[in-house]
Amino acid sequence: MAVGDVSFPKMWTVAGIKIGSSEAYVRYPNRRDLVIFELAEGSNIAGVFTQNAFAAAPVVLSKQHLAKSLSADQPRYLIINTGNANAATGTIGLENAEKTCAHLAKLTGVQSHQILPFSTGVIGEQLPIERLLSGIQPALDNLNADSWQEAATGIMTTDTAPKGASEQFELDGITYCMTGISKGAGMIRPNMATMLSFVATDAPIAKNLVEQLLKTTVEQSFNRITIDGDTSTNDSCIFIATGQAGGQAIQQSDDPRYQVVLDVLSRIMLRLAQLIVRDGEGATKFITVTVEGGVSTQECCDVAYSIAESPLIKTALFASDPNWGRIVMAIGKAGIAQLDTSKVQVWLGDVRICRDGGAALDYTEEAGAKVMAEKEITIRIDLGRGTAQDTVYTCDFSYDYVKINADYRS
Amino acid sequence: MAVGDVSFPKMWTVAGIKIGSSEAYVRYPNRRDLVIFELAEGSNIAGVFTQNAFAAAPVVLSKQHLAKSLSADQPRYLIINTGNANAATGTIGLENAEKTCAHLAKLTGVQSHQILPFSTGVIGEQLPIERLLSGIQPALDNLNADSWQEAATGIMTTDTAPKGASEQFELDGITYCMTGISKGAGMIRPNMATMLSFVATDAPIAKNLVEQLLKTTVEQSFNRITIDGDTSTNDSCIFIATGQAGGQAIQQSDDPRYQVVLDVLSRIMLRLAQLIVRDGEGATKFITVTVEGGVSTQECCDVAYSIAESPLIKTALFASDPNWGRIVMAIGKAGIAQLDTSKVQVWLGDVRICRDGGAALDYTEEAGAKVMAEKEITIRIDLGRGTAQDTVYTCDFSYDYVKINADYRS
Repeated sequence: MAVGDVSFPKMWTVAGIKIGSSEAYVRYPNRRDLVIFELAEGSNIAGVFTQNAFAAAPVVLSKQHLAKSLSADQPRYLIINTGNANAATGTIGLENAEKTCAHLAKLTGVQSHQILPFSTGVIGEQLPIERLLSGIQPALDNLNADSWQEAATGIMTTDTAPKGASEQFELDGITYCMTGISKGAGMIRPNMATMLSFVATDAPIAKNLVEQLLKTTVEQSFNRITIDGDTSTNDSCIFIATGQAGGQAIQQSDDPRYQVVLDVLSRIMLRLAQLIVRDGEGATKFITVTVEGGVSTQECCDVAYSIAESPLIKTALFASDPNWGRIVMAIGKAGIAQLDTSKVQVWLGDVRICRDGGAALDYTEEAGAKVMAEKEITIRIDLGRGTAQDTVYTCDFSYDYVKINADYRS
Repeated sequence: MAVGDVSFPKMWTVAGIKIGSSEAYVRYPNRRDLVIFELAEGSNIAGVFTQNAFAAAPVVLSKQHLAKSLSADQPRYLIINTGNANAATGTIGLENAEKTCAHLAKLTGVQSHQILPFSTGVIGEQLPIERLLSGIQPALDNLNADSWQEAATGIMTTDTAPKGASEQFELDGITYCMTGISKGAGMIRPNMATMLSFVATDAPIAKNLVEQLLKTTVEQSFNRITIDGDTSTNDSCIFIATGQAGGQAIQQSDDPRYQVVLDVLSRIMLRLAQLIVRDGEGATKFITVTVEGGVSTQECCDVAYSIAESPLIKTALFASDPNWGRIVMAIGKAGIAQLDTSKVQVWLGDVRICRDGGAALDYTEEAGAKVMAEKEITIRIDLGRGTAQDTVYTCDFSYDYVKINADYRS
């Protein structure tokens, strides 16, 4: 069960984006597992991908095709399957990803490099390529602008709920919208991207700014969540600006409209990233870890991840046990050079539990227990040595995490 | 339940070492929780300690006292309590550790700096110092040479079994022995040391060589195990050479007897370290991760730890699921620069599951499942880019890990 409100919102349709889906039986029968996005001609698109060395075949191919679009035709279609990651599949895996693009290109009359493929699911098995190819025409047959929820559902793996975020905004009197979906519940410690996320707007934005907007917002959203510390082979995050709602294109980042778009995208990305944490495998709590007073954001992140990925802290959070000694252990093991532990302070919610290297004098176990009983908990650290700060989002570690990951595949 | 044979062995008594223990009610009543080692005058001793910045008060004090012993009297007593780590306890914690040493020094007529204190248990609470001090005389009252098993039991926390290793060996016709104990089951990713381990020999070894022997053997034993990736605040490993069994002191590392002692100590340290993994919290399997073909031992270790600490792999091991895609994910996320994934090979036991970046052609799920059903499993990786190799030991991740760590303290 996901933590907090993860209800699927009203999704504003994005002019220039159509979505189709089908049941291709990639892994399980009778479920929507193939999704196609059609992008209007002239759309600008940017992507960030996993840093895992065993990047999946579709990641390799999508990066190649995106690179080509700098000098040739822009991408016109995204094709996404769940149930099989097409990762660690060698040359056959790459051929299968190429076949997928070629088939979709043939049916739609575009070039193969105008297709970006994405896969998610089990690693190390070959795609059932014939079934996948057979699912493409049915998906094209139901392309329409209103299918964002079907798309969000069609890319799920161990997710318990589809994940979406959508906003309307105004630039110079024109109303635009921005809408996106994400998926992911395990193998989540994105490194430059997340499992899968697709966000689109009908605002007109120059290609270089689309890239800049994506990189800026990913850094504070998908690159700040962790469920199990495991970086997926398939992480991909795509941002599309179709420009189909009209208006003059935003060409420079000092255009005042750029800041408006940045704010909207930041909110949507953060929401989509947090939805992944709220639906983390077996999650019963949503945890915000904020580290302040660092010399650099890097050391703030190092401490935050050390806390957010400690199995001992995550199980204590599951048990609602204010066992804060485990938090100082995790601060101490983060490898911060010359940390003066006597200056470190720790808060659980509003309750200061640690100062001067030991328990705060006014701390009571009752006060700590009260915060730990909440479903949403903020752990705040002040390192007492600088002005940098950063925040990471995570969830707890429950019996169900073990159950889900011991049972998955079976 | 611990994995494999963890039976407590015959413990050879070490001439020059006496051990006493008592029930001091540090945390729980009616259990042995205070242990004192008495070392014969002239014993040489070396220690390695946690790198955690929140090092416990007894760690801080033991390091100070050991440093003093270079110019003054050598340590004569170790005092160890379980139930409370005396970590993140600020100045009061340090005062309590000092009081403990002072009281023991007074009762035995030695200097306070000749006492090394150790604590293990819950972090962030103050020691019940009066009860602890009251337990010292009773422990001194039963000092004797045969109490190694009582000591191993008296330092346990979530351990399910006492851990010991002991060997006799001969140097120039004189029979010596080496005997040691360790404890630890969670918060185990030692960094220069382990939770707690004490090893003694009655062989005569110069002080500088005692240090060298400890550092050399810790590196390939305690510094190669992980249960949850969490480095304790209290890790300490002590090696004592009493010299009480006679013979000329070993002064140089090119003395042929040095190699004999090194071999014995290596075996004892590796056994004590592996016993901790076999008794890892909730462990049902003992896992050896060997990485070969690396450019450096560092990158072999990086890959080995990435596998050994992945929650997804550990839960798959618990489920006996040969979900080897998770293994390549963990290799890929280890951050090895310019890894050519097409040269990576992976074996599960004797079964090659991955080569050329994908599934090995002769791999069958049945063969993988057979290996995964074993209680002791070796995962072997060949990175295909060099001659370095290294090995890390770990265990799986079960429901009981969550249960133990959600319930601990309560």
